[in-house]
Amino acid sequence: MAQKPSIPKGTRDFSPEEMLKRRYIFNTLQSVFVKYGYLPLETPSMENLSTLMGKYGEEGDKLLFKVLNSGEFTNKLSSSDLESKSSAAIATQICEKGLRYDLTVPFARYVVMHQAEISFPFKRYQIQPVWRADRPQKGRYREFFQCDVDVVGSNSLLNEVELIQMVSEGFAALRINVTLKINNRKILYGIAETIGHADKLIDITVAIDKLDKIGIDAVNSELLAKGIDEKGVEALRPILELEGTNSEKLAKIGSIISQSQVGMKGVEEVSTILNYAHSLGVDIDLELDLSLARGLNYYTGAIFEVKAKDYAIGSISGGGRYDDLTGVFGLKGVSGVGISFGADRIYDVMSALELFPSETNQSTKAIFINFGGKEELCSLQLLSQLRKAGVASEIYPDSAKMKKQMDYANRRNIPYVIIIGENELNEQKATVKNMLTGEQTSVEFGAIADFLN
Amino acid sequence: MAQKPSIPKGTRDFSPEEMLKRRYIFNTLQSVFVKYGYLPLETPSMENLSTLMGKYGEEGDKLLFKVLNSGEFTNKLSSSDLESKSSAAIATQICEKGLRYDLTVPFARYVVMHQAEISFPFKRYQIQPVWRADRPQKGRYREFFQCDVDVVGSNSLLNEVELIQMVSEGFAALRINVTLKINNRKILYGIAETIGHADKLIDITVAIDKLDKIGIDAVNSELLAKGIDEKGVEALRPILELEGTNSEKLAKIGSIISQSQVGMKGVEEVSTILNYAHSLGVDIDLELDLSLARGLNYYTGAIFEVKAKDYAIGSISGGGRYDDLTGVFGLKGVSGVGISFGADRIYDVMSALELFPSETNQSTKAIFINFGGKEELCSLQLLSQLRKAGVASEIYPDSAKMKKQMDYANRRNIPYVIIIGENELNEQKATVKNMLTGEQTSVEFGAIADFLN
Repeated sequence: MAQKPSIPKGTRDFSPEEMLKRRYIFNTLQSVFVKYGYLPLETPSMENLSTLMGKYGEEGDKLLFKVLNSGEFTNKLSSSDLESKSSAAIATQICEKGLRYDLTVPFARYVVMHQAEISFPFKRYQIQPVWRADRPQKGRYREFFQCDVDVVGSNSLLNEVELIQMVSEGFAALRINVTLKINNRKILYGIAETIGHADKLIDITVAIDKLDKIGIDAVNSELLAKGIDEKGVEALRPILELEGTNSEKLAKIGSIISQSQVGMKGVEEVSTILNYAHSLGVDIDLELDLSLARGLNYYTGAIFEVKAKDYAIGSISGGGRYDDLTGVFGLKGVSGVGISFGADRIYDVMSALELFPSETNQSTKAIFINFGGKEELCSLQLLSQLRKAGVASEIYPDSAKMKKQMDYANRRNIPYVIIIGENELNEQKATVKNMLTGEQTSVEFGAIADFLN
Repeated sequence: MAQKPSIPKGTRDFSPEEMLKRRYIFNTLQSVFVKYGYLPLETPSMENLSTLMGKYGEEGDKLLFKVLNSGEFTNKLSSSDLESKSSAAIATQICEKGLRYDLTVPFARYVVMHQAEISFPFKRYQIQPVWRADRPQKGRYREFFQCDVDVVGSNSLLNEVELIQMVSEGFAALRINVTLKINNRKILYGIAETIGHADKLIDITVAIDKLDKIGIDAVNSELLAKGIDEKGVEALRPILELEGTNSEKLAKIGSIISQSQVGMKGVEEVSTILNYAHSLGVDIDLELDLSLARGLNYYTGAIFEVKAKDYAIGSISGGGRYDDLTGVFGLKGVSGVGISFGADRIYDVMSALELFPSETNQSTKAIFINFGGKEELCSLQLLSQLRKAGVASEIYPDSAKMKKQMDYANRRNIPYVIIIGENELNEQKATVKNMLTGEQTSVEFGAIADFLN
């Protein structure tokens, strides 16, 4: 019995049409990364579970896809294990490997393993799928692509500036209008310190991170629940609601947290970054947003988030500076800063706003109609010439009915159809039909490539 | 305690240098596929085990990497299961998904699921990793890339011809000298029929397939062991050792198997393919090899294999025609033909013969030395201009010691170093050093991009 095939939930096939669009995004971004001197890297899909576990919090451990040991894996398992242990504990007994959950931990692992060969600062980009056993829903997949750009081994703020430039150029090339929000974890620490809760930085960060979604009142309730006192919460509110230009905000927050050394370092960092961006004429809306927190604990300096202006969707890019990413693998004191482009959301924005260039869904430029016999042979020879001239082209492989062949050309979105019939053969001229306008042109055999280009 | 990181055996990181070389291979092949009108496709890394199991033989089922169900998977498992069932049986109880084993079965699954949207003949290429729990050894990995080109939904032999053209062009572009061996399963059937063992086609195919590796005597022993009689084995020997030009071989085999209708169809197919290739001036060594069998059972017509002439390694490409690939998923009568390029072996051949162009390991063209202060600002502005002009370029992010910066440029293999010091600033001329020759040139600020291009 033939089975009716399906694919695992949360995964996707990418049809040729989708592939061409996705590739347009990746190629556009990649050409920016290359222009900025970033190098490609790829890591294996499977990592040892010891590399992955404990890096994404308890929830993350649960969301790791684990790969069953091959061979007689049940040898490691007894009936009493089955009765006494949790699924999670048994999983680590019968699985040594897992699918990567992001590109950051594998990158850190790579840097530590290859520290002797790497020339620091190491600027790398990486575009690969990651897997999470999350509940699938609209826009959330169990297999999705990340597109990460990081530089490690340099504390210089020029790296932050360069990331901003790449964001600006990348989205300009994709024709997406964006706002780049920037903040600094040191400022957030300064705020926590100033309101008397330096020890609660993570709670404060996590709460603030939800401001956009749940509003100020819910954030305040959460802060109170986490043990921040009324006074602290009240002191925080005006900070989160600061308005004005970036310079005005910097001046105000500087005066509020002036007693916090770390906080003032953050103010200085933001100021330096903004000054560089200004003097280099970076053409992007750059907004200091003191309520920008980003959830991940490992950020220690600048943090970024990119929003599309013309389409309501979460952030389409984000990142920041982390001072000790490789420490967990034994390499201390290597600072890094990076940003991740959200391919799926970028795809959604571009689809909704119809930003893909029309050429994106054209692959083959011309197709020869197949009449068989000596017409076919002549078509095949002309086809070889076209391909030599770099024109993506094909021939219908059978001398099927004209209508069938034309339908194929239409459905494939091929813009030119070339007809070599008996007349054409006698006159040594091809009939070239523009499928968009319907216009037919008689073109000498030797001039078809020029005509199409 | 920091852990010393490692990666699962049989998997690989691809360093920037390797990535650039691998990408050179993939991009070169891909540009050929595109020129021939083939469309990109990608399928999920995970497939349902029901899609994968039973498609690669018993051995293949064992080599599938299975992905543990998330959540409370042990609910499905009792102590008595553990005692009474094999690991393999338990695996299917606690795993619903597996990593794809090749690109062919997922492609067939895709075609069946999307038959209504696809315009046939469907020409697709697919470059993605596959996973096999094989014992890792030199040149054999548990995660490796396949690069497949197939066309389905057309019986025309023009498709075979086109694949030959693509092989020819692809390897010419990579500068690898190759021989393309061709045979036809129908001829092999004709031979089996002629020697009186039509029912043993698979045994004969499997045995012949080993000829290169184990020699004619061992093949004969295997044939005898499989129940082919002495007379049959003796009749087979001269066929496998046929010599001469392709036309001579075709004539001889045609006379030997003239009583087999299927066999003569095979002779005619090979003849047609070779004639097309000849009249289109296909520039590749095309050799009819009657001992070429290829192990996979699903081939039914033409079969191909590509060997590098200047380096001893197994075949670097292979494929053939299959008449019923999608039948197992419920879609009958869709014929296909395809070929797979072995990326890892191609990489090994090109490395050994030093065929990678020297530009392949260059990514960034120029780097500015960072002296800080107003020299840095001027460098940053010139850098922006270079990048705008499309020159991949960077600046060392700190005003570190000159030696450190030059070392970095050297190790990164960056061919030009640009120096903007005090003098250069005063004269508005950059000092551009060619790192290969050591030559230094003074270049006006506005002319650096032109100088580098």
